[in-house]
Amino acid sequence: MKIGIADTTFARVNMGAVAIDELKRHASLAIERSTVPGVKDLPVACKKLIEERRCDLVIALGMPGGKEKDRLCAHEASQGLILCQLMTNRHIIEVFVHEDEAEDDRELAWLAEQRTREHVVNAVRLLLAPDSLTREAGTGQRQGFGDAGPARR
Amino acid sequence: MKIGIADTTFARVNMGAVAIDELKRHASLAIERSTVPGVKDLPVACKKLIEERRCDLVIALGMPGGKEKDRLCAHEASQGLILCQLMTNRHIIEVFVHEDEAEDDRELAWLAEQRTREHVVNAVRLLLAPDSLTREAGTGQRQGFGDAGPARR
Amino acid sequence: MKIGIADTTFARVNMGAVAIDELKRHASLAIERSTVPGVKDLPVACKKLIEERRCDLVIALGMPGGKEKDRLCAHEASQGLILCQLMTNRHIIEVFVHEDEAEDDRELAWLAEQRTREHVVNAVRLLLAPDSLTREAGTGQRQGFGDAGPARR
Amino acid sequence: MKIGIADTTFARVNMGAVAIDELKRHASLAIERSTVPGVKDLPVACKKLIEERRCDLVIALGMPGGKEKDRLCAHEASQGLILCQLMTNRHIIEVFVHEDEAEDDRELAWLAEQRTREHVVNAVRLLLAPDSLTREAGTGQRQGFGDAGPARR
Amino acid sequence: MKIGIADTTFARVNMGAVAIDELKRHASLAIERSTVPGVKDLPVACKKLIEERRCDLVIALGMPGGKEKDRLCAHEASQGLILCQLMTNRHIIEVFVHEDEAEDDRELAWLAEQRTREHVVNAVRLLLAPDSLTREAGTGQRQGFGDAGPARR
Repeated sequence: MKIGIADTTFARVNMGAVAIDELKRHASLAIERSTVPGVKDLPVACKKLIEERRCDLVIALGMPGGKEKDRLCAHEASQGLILCQLMTNRHIIEVFVHEDEAEDDRELAWLAEQRTREHVVNAVRLLLAPDSLTREAGTGQRQGFGDAGPARR
Repeated sequence: MKIGIADTTFARVNMGAVAIDELKRHASLAIERSTVPGVKDLPVACKKLIEERRCDLVIALGMPGGKEKDRLCAHEASQGLILCQLMTNRHIIEVFVHEDEAEDDRELAWLAEQRTREHVVNAVRLLLAPDSLTREAGTGQRQGFGDAGPARR
Repeated sequence: MKIGIADTTFARVNMGAVAIDELKRHASLAIERSTVPGVKDLPVACKKLIEERRCDLVIALGMPGGKEKDRLCAHEASQGLILCQLMTNRHIIEVFVHEDEAEDDRELAWLAEQRTREHVVNAVRLLLAPDSLTREAGTGQRQGFGDAGPARR
Repeated sequence: MKIGIADTTFARVNMGAVAIDELKRHASLAIERSTVPGVKDLPVACKKLIEERRCDLVIALGMPGGKEKDRLCAHEASQGLILCQLMTNRHIIEVFVHEDEAEDDRELAWLAEQRTREHVVNAVRLLLAPDSLTREAGTGQRQGFGDAGPARR
Repeated sequence: MKIGIADTTFARVNMGAVAIDELKRHASLAIERSTVPGVKDLPVACKKLIEERRCDLVIALGMPGGKEKDRLCAHEASQGLILCQLMTNRHIIEVFVHEDEAEDDRELAWLAEQRTREHVVNAVRLLLAPDSLTREAGTGQRQGFGDAGPARR
């Protein structure tokens, strides 16, 4: 089993390094990494990780800026990541942290790390124990900030 | 005949469990379930249910949040679900409940369950008795809240 | 030659029945009909009509609601219908009537019927006499409400 | 070499006739024409011109209305035209004139004719002398209204 | 190894010439160039550079105008470029400079040149030394204006 890590030089936190650190805590999987300039370069980077470097699942890490144009870039990237999954029948866990989700650099760095770590756990479970997620179905899980929790109590 | 259920840990109601409960009331079909983190993970989950686990139809259950970013995620997921259907020639019944459709948690839980149950019935009819829907063509059916009814009386 | 009719139970007018009635006035073509819950189910319904039931052209009938979310559903459906056409090299005539195009139920019913009938004529011409549309090129044809007419008089 | 012309009955100017007139001034190429109801029918019309009628390049002519819904139709059509090009490895020159670009019918007719003629020249150059466009790279060319010109003088 | 350059006559700066100049400073790679009218023509131009002229990577250069319609064109072009990459498993480095990013022609010309040069370096690194980008992962790199830098100091 091999996991791919795709990240960017545009991001302001080394999300790829965080992901690799977290991955190693949970499983001894082979890891392939590809770093590209920005989020719009991620879809094909993921496709190459899957098809040329034989990854079974990819974690795509990005940090779109806070302007309207950046939101559009993120949207285009997300569409590409979904298409890539449909073309390859492999899951790609998208971990995007929008710069305007955080109030300052400190929170941004925290959020990027936290969300990355929590999504790495999701990725490992999807790959190695897919049914384990079913036990948390509908429980309002969130990655980064606190969980929303279930609606009925 | 086999039906796939794809749902999320992000949702705040266990829509997958509701769907399975409703399915069992209407038909004794084999069921495959895949739970993923969020709605953007649903398209490939559905594709894998169709191609790797041989489902004839999939019900995709999700509960997007109420912010602008969440609406965009739901849009991307919907586009992916449509593409997945076109790639596989299989129907995927999308059951999305937007968190801001309900006024409080209680209504949200009710709406998620109600819409899921009604769409499961649609799914069973599409699969086992596709012509039965034609008898309700143009009658303003809705899933969850009340039907709109026909325009001409 | 075979024409497919795809319509929905969501619509508040039986556009499929109107389309079949109009079709029979113009040509004795074989007709296949598929009724699905909503407009987002139309793309794959059309693809199945083309590939599994051998239709040469499909008329896709839908009536999106008047809210922002409904407009987005219609957009996603339209994208899917265009993709379906590109995948199959078959024309799909989209006939969508947005609920907010009409002032009341009476006008909505009239508009849905009128637009459907005019587009059925378009569909028949595309299939049986494609060059006949060229004679009306650039003349500002509309379906439902009055024609816009040519810009230069 | 064969050029395809795809146009619509929705347009208020016979852009297809203008394109054919201009084409004949520049080259003696075979021409195939397909007229469809509206811009959303153009993508598959272009695909059929390329794959079934063997066109080497297609000029897609349309005149979207001025309302928000029309803009969305044009967007969907443009996405389809780009996808069609990617599926066929053939250029499609999109010539869209939005009704609200002109102040009155007279200007609209002028603009539609002017833009069509200028884009036909682009199409001929792309097909017969692709390198000739490189000599105008970055010079702020526009089709219809005046050129923007280069930014540095 | 061969690099493709796709640019437009619409742009107000000869970004293609700038890219070629910068390319020659960094590597002696074969170069293929294709100039098209506007950004929406870039996706298929890139596809042809990759598939018909055997480029290993393409740099797509464009300068969308500042109006809403132009932003939509750029969005459609970006979606097409991402799709093209997924269809070919080749990176396309998109270098778009929006006319409204600069305050005057002088700044626009500077920005177009600067961003092009910096992205050419990215392209060369992706092609010849892909791992070198990993050393800059998460450091807030920008192309054109100043870098944002890392979030945690």
